[in-house]
Amino acid sequence: VTRLAAAQLSLTTGDVPGNRRSGRDAVAAAAARGAALVVLPELSDTGYVFADRLEAEHLADPGPTVDGWVAAAREFGMVVVGGYCDRVGGELRNSAVVVDGGGVLARYDKVHLWGREPEVFTPGTAPPPVVDTAVGRVGLLVCYDLEFPEWVRLAADAGAEVVAAPVNWPRADRPVGERPVEVVKAQAAAAYYGVHVVVADRCGGDRGTTWVGGTCIVDRTGYLAAGPSLEDTPGLVVADVDVAAARDKRLGSRNHLFTDRRPELYG
Amino acid sequence: VTRLAAAQLSLTTGDVPGNRRSGRDAVAAAAARGAALVVLPELSDTGYVFADRLEAEHLADPGPTVDGWVAAAREFGMVVVGGYCDRVGGELRNSAVVVDGGGVLARYDKVHLWGREPEVFTPGTAPPPVVDTAVGRVGLLVCYDLEFPEWVRLAADAGAEVVAAPVNWPRADRPVGERPVEVVKAQAAAAYYGVHVVVADRCGGDRGTTWVGGTCIVDRTGYLAAGPSLEDTPGLVVADVDVAAARDKRLGSRNHLFTDRRPELYG
Repeated sequence: VTRLAAAQLSLTTGDVPGNRRSGRDAVAAAAARGAALVVLPELSDTGYVFADRLEAEHLADPGPTVDGWVAAAREFGMVVVGGYCDRVGGELRNSAVVVDGGGVLARYDKVHLWGREPEVFTPGTAPPPVVDTAVGRVGLLVCYDLEFPEWVRLAADAGAEVVAAPVNWPRADRPVGERPVEVVKAQAAAAYYGVHVVVADRCGGDRGTTWVGGTCIVDRTGYLAAGPSLEDTPGLVVADVDVAAARDKRLGSRNHLFTDRRPELYG
Repeated sequence: VTRLAAAQLSLTTGDVPGNRRSGRDAVAAAAARGAALVVLPELSDTGYVFADRLEAEHLADPGPTVDGWVAAAREFGMVVVGGYCDRVGGELRNSAVVVDGGGVLARYDKVHLWGREPEVFTPGTAPPPVVDTAVGRVGLLVCYDLEFPEWVRLAADAGAEVVAAPVNWPRADRPVGERPVEVVKAQAAAAYYGVHVVVADRCGGDRGTTWVGGTCIVDRTGYLAAGPSLEDTPGLVVADVDVAAARDKRLGSRNHLFTDRRPELYG
C-alpha cells in the first residue's frame, strides 16, 4: 500500500508568499507523515476570491509557485499535486500540475468553470492528463470538473489509478448530519470507475466566502479511506491506499465497471 | 408538493401469489398515507433468486401482475411503478412498468444486467422511458441501470422529474456507519442531473441472498428526502417532494447542470 495525503489549507486571496509557505509546510508535513503523494487545493497560490480579473492578472505568478513545488518534491522525495493561477499569453487559467523532483509531469487547465470564474479564466479544452508517477498512474482535474462523471471516466479510461482533485468547495446549506453533496459525487465517481480520488479543499473564510473543509481520500470502492473533517481547521488527511487495486475493474464475481457499460446506447 | 412513496418488501422467490399480495398491500398502504405514486421493487412478482432460467420461465406470468397494478392504481387513484418478470416470445426480460388507473403508461426492459441475470434475461436496448403522469414526468429504469450515470442523464434529458428505480440490492460488506455505495450513487445521479430518485428495494433473506433495505427517496439536490432504513424490515418510505422543481437545472446563481456540460469533450 501507498500512503497518500491531501492538505486542507486556510488561504488568503492576495497573499501569494504566505499561501506558498502554507503549501510548502503541508508538503513537509505530509513527508513527515510518510506520505508519497500530497495534493494541495485549487488556486492555492493566489487564493480564489479575486475582486476582478485585473487582480487575478496582477497576482498570477505561476513560475515560482510551480518551481517551489518541484523543489519541495525533490527535497522530500514526493509527488506533489497543486492548483495555481496560470497565465498563458494574455489569458488566465485555473490550472493544476503533477510534479516530482524531476519537474512537471502533467499540467491541466480546468474545463468546467464555476460561478464568476468565466469572468477571469479561459476554460481548458483538453481532457484530464494521466501520468505515471512513483505512486502509480495519476489523473488530474480541478474542483467542479469532479462533478461531471464523464470527466472522471476519461481519466479512468486513460488508466488513472488515482484521480487528484484540488478544489475550493464553497460552503452551502445542507441537511443536518449529511455530507456535502460534493463529497457524495466524489464517492460515486470513484465507485463508477474504480479509481481512488484524493480531494484537497480549503477551510476558513476569505473575503466573505467560507469553505466546506471537505478534504478527503475516497477508495476506489466509493467508500471513504480518510476524511472529510468538515471542520474549519487546516490539516492533513492521510490514508494508506492499495493504488494498483484500481486496475481491477471487476465488480463482484460477474460484473465489470467498464465492460458492463453500454456506450453505444448513451446517445 | 406531492407525496411519493417507495415500498420496501420482503419477497419469496416462487411465491407469485404471495408476492403480488405484498405489492397490492403496499399500494393500499401508500394510498392510506396519502401518496400519489408508489414504487415497488425489481422482479416483485416472481422474486429474484431463480434456481435457473427454467424456473424463471415457469414463474413468469406478467399479465396478471401488471393487470393487478392497473386495478390497484384505479382503485386507489395512484400511479404505480413496479418491477416484474416479463416473457416476450421465447425471451425473458427483467422489466418494469409505470401504470395508472387507465392502463400501462410506460414499459421498460433492464439494460444493464447483474450477476447471473444474463443466464436468464435478454437485456433491453431501449433507453429509460419518460412519461407524463398525474404526479409529473416519470422516468423508469431498474436496479444496476442506476449505477450508470449516463442512463440517468438520458432520462433527465427526456424531461424526467422523477426517476423511479425498482431494485434488488444484494447486501455486501461496507465500512461501519457508511451508507451502501448504491445509495451514494443514487444520490450523486440525482444531483448530477437534478432529478428526484425513488428507489424501492427488498429486505429480508431469500434462498441465501440478503438485501440491503436501501429503499429511499432522494431529492433533486442529491440529499435524502426519506430513507434508507437499512434495516431488515418491510415498510413504506414516504416523502413530500416538489416534483416540478426538477425542471429547474440551475445550480447556485451562475451555473446550470445541463449547459455546464461539455459533451463535445467527453469522447
